[in-house]
Amino acid sequence: MLTRSPDRSLTEQLAERFAERIRTRLLPAGARLPSVRECARQQGVSPHTVVAAYDKLLAQGLVEARRQRGFYVRDIVQKMPLGQDGQAQTAILSEATAASPLGPMGLCLPGSRINATALIRGMFHQVSNKPQPGSGVLPVAWLEEARFLSAAVRKITAGPALQGGSLSYGEPMGDAGLRQALARRMADIHIPARPGQIITTVGATQALDIVSRTMLKAGDPVMVEEPGWSVEFARLEALGMRVLPVPRGPEGPDLAVMARYCELHAPRLFVSVSVLHNPTGYSLSPAGAHQVLQLAQRHDFHIVEDDTYGHIAPERATRLSMLDGLRRTIYVSGFAKILAPNWRIGYLAAPPDLVERMLDTKLLSTLTTPAILEKALALCIDQGQLRRHAERMRQRIAQARTRSVQLALAAGCRFAAEPAGMFGWVDTGVDTDMLAQRLLDEGYLIAPGALFHATRQPCTLMRINFGNTQEPAFWRAWQRVVASVK
Amino acid sequence: MLTRSPDRSLTEQLAERFAERIRTRLLPAGARLPSVRECARQQGVSPHTVVAAYDKLLAQGLVEARRQRGFYVRDIVQKMPLGQDGQAQTAILSEATAASPLGPMGLCLPGSRINATALIRGMFHQVSNKPQPGSGVLPVAWLEEARFLSAAVRKITAGPALQGGSLSYGEPMGDAGLRQALARRMADIHIPARPGQIITTVGATQALDIVSRTMLKAGDPVMVEEPGWSVEFARLEALGMRVLPVPRGPEGPDLAVMARYCELHAPRLFVSVSVLHNPTGYSLSPAGAHQVLQLAQRHDFHIVEDDTYGHIAPERATRLSMLDGLRRTIYVSGFAKILAPNWRIGYLAAPPDLVERMLDTKLLSTLTTPAILEKALALCIDQGQLRRHAERMRQRIAQARTRSVQLALAAGCRFAAEPAGMFGWVDTGVDTDMLAQRLLDEGYLIAPGALFHATRQPCTLMRINFGNTQEPAFWRAWQRVVASVK
Repeated sequence: MLTRSPDRSLTEQLAERFAERIRTRLLPAGARLPSVRECARQQGVSPHTVVAAYDKLLAQGLVEARRQRGFYVRDIVQKMPLGQDGQAQTAILSEATAASPLGPMGLCLPGSRINATALIRGMFHQVSNKPQPGSGVLPVAWLEEARFLSAAVRKITAGPALQGGSLSYGEPMGDAGLRQALARRMADIHIPARPGQIITTVGATQALDIVSRTMLKAGDPVMVEEPGWSVEFARLEALGMRVLPVPRGPEGPDLAVMARYCELHAPRLFVSVSVLHNPTGYSLSPAGAHQVLQLAQRHDFHIVEDDTYGHIAPERATRLSMLDGLRRTIYVSGFAKILAPNWRIGYLAAPPDLVERMLDTKLLSTLTTPAILEKALALCIDQGQLRRHAERMRQRIAQARTRSVQLALAAGCRFAAEPAGMFGWVDTGVDTDMLAQRLLDEGYLIAPGALFHATRQPCTLMRINFGNTQEPAFWRAWQRVVASVK
Repeated sequence: MLTRSPDRSLTEQLAERFAERIRTRLLPAGARLPSVRECARQQGVSPHTVVAAYDKLLAQGLVEARRQRGFYVRDIVQKMPLGQDGQAQTAILSEATAASPLGPMGLCLPGSRINATALIRGMFHQVSNKPQPGSGVLPVAWLEEARFLSAAVRKITAGPALQGGSLSYGEPMGDAGLRQALARRMADIHIPARPGQIITTVGATQALDIVSRTMLKAGDPVMVEEPGWSVEFARLEALGMRVLPVPRGPEGPDLAVMARYCELHAPRLFVSVSVLHNPTGYSLSPAGAHQVLQLAQRHDFHIVEDDTYGHIAPERATRLSMLDGLRRTIYVSGFAKILAPNWRIGYLAAPPDLVERMLDTKLLSTLTTPAILEKALALCIDQGQLRRHAERMRQRIAQARTRSVQLALAAGCRFAAEPAGMFGWVDTGVDTDMLAQRLLDEGYLIAPGALFHATRQPCTLMRINFGNTQEPAFWRAWQRVVASVK
């Protein structure tokens, strides 16, 4: 909240608040600032103060005034040339979705890339000390329970392995011990992978990047689930791929839409978060998995199975890679959701005939990956610490989910998907892009639904992190803001 | 050498030797095996043994027999679709080089990508315990002198910083302390960069990858130096860029060729290793730097200055970024050549208007980078240990260079470039691709000149690592092999 202070005037405070959001892109280019009257009411200051603050932003070049229409955030970041122009993209979408029960899904604005990275930057940016509903990771206090991490790192760095492992480039595929441990972990979830099929990466993010760069070239069509993780859309767009969004339902992706894409565009790749899908929490049914694989067989495309949430999934979840045995599927996972987000350890397991090409792409993009952290992680897996920690985290998530769901329902929200995993997909009945800006004033960062769509559209949905929405304080703030905008 | 043994027949040993080289791609797809008679003579075995070994390779599907022409290595790795077909590429090259004093530079074979990654895999593959002349890094025994590394890692991992730094994604730009240290290091070499312009990366490799992905889209022309680092050519080709090779001379790149490329293709980017260029060791003259920047100004392109060898360069080397003040230049460097290749810490410093876009690309490709190692490196820089270590390494390199140059000259080699830095660019008078295969039999991996050309051609040059060519044993083996092929 703005507070009267001898050091900084209300005008300065207000201008600085907007400037900060524009710089961190929580207020993206093209967004309209609230009207002077609206802003004065929201912030409890006089219209004069708001006018003076907006003037400051104008003078700093952060916003522009459009006649009769108000103040808009300027594009302070030079746009990159997009591989596909918006129009071509729209044409593709409307062709395919004409046949879908959802009907046309609206325009894909070229600016969506900026918005995706803005979301993720927002997540790194500490907006307040409050638990953040929009966060994509488990609460730090939970992850702190994994005290075995420090011990593992110290064990690895105390021995001669540190020098030995650091002074050459290391194994291109990644630390052999870790790849063995990963192969055993995959066997536990019934995916047969030899260590020689596994390549370690800088987080699951690099694994997905390697797969798209290896399997596709600019202009190639690629199917992705919608709603889905916006960084995936943004990466594919930045690489110049043609993104074909497939509606994701509780049982799996919409097969009719996929079949139509296959006939029209012959995509070579489908990117799927099969288990605990982000943001819905859906997990693929066995029958759904079988049908997707049949379609892949019939139309000869590969599937990247992004199992980022695998460690917090129920024991018997069905994976595509399990049914397929890594013939047409490339399995991707990592440890950011369960252990140490900053260690950036992910991996991919590929069909034997694709491993060499994937490895080439890894070499071209980062050469190798740091072995110290990989060795420490291998230790945690081998000693069973990761498995026990994951069990504890699953219990904690289940408890938090129960509490958060009750609070959300009491606050008048509806769940658009059956709550599961660490995220809830909530229908608020109000435009969540607008809500997001207002909740920032209260110190809360939320993840509005528009950010999970390849095709940008007004959206009343939001994704909540169950770990961070267990306290009534957030829901009280939420109700206050909703009441004020209705 | 092959040795008679009760366990494995000479045939098995010979077949296994070829199979291993094919698998590691030291014998690339399309390479011809020596004729039966030739191989028998080289290996000191009977023609029967060779025929039986080749039959084994045939049965394993590793080679194919072409009638009347011998045995050829099969392409065991599925080719990726190239952004540009070879023909279009050749047309571009001949246009531009018609005006150059070097004349046409020959065909660019689509297979060059495989060969580049083969080289680098070969470098990771321990072919023997001997010092490897083709290696791209300083001898491990030298790097082991940096004992302060272990202490720094232990200091960082002992404190609470480990948990704190690991459990969130961390700062998108990279550890703030390291970026401050890097800004000071850049100030020492007269490049003005604020920490806010610096982004840490997974080695200089990722920095170069981020720059090309941010500045270019598939199909865009990009100028690179030739000879040059083949992984750079391979990455740009894999991203679908049109590689325009610029001959590199002692004073700098060939400005006439660059000007012609600019008129014909309006490239947006030039990639340059200005100081201690790989493989020649050339360093840009102040006048050369000024002229390159003038050309960039006139034709409105940016320059990535790859300063990978900066730490071992003379104190007063001229950098483009120094003259330009990071307006049109993006500065890239890393620590693999001086400290710990496996830590994979590199960085870029960009003009203020490009920083945000570069950061977006980093987020899309690896999200963040591991902070533990960045904090440990910052400690080594702040305490002056890196600077003192670099001084020692420069002295060691100078001594090794003197010895290696004497031995190379005595062995009948000629230096194609004035020896400087850690690499020598040596003219052997013999085709070095063939030499490379024969020297592998002796346990030596060399870096043949063909691998430093975007346009593949027979080449009598090779790059030697001065640190690994100080022993007469290598040069004796070299002379034996040269005598046998002449």
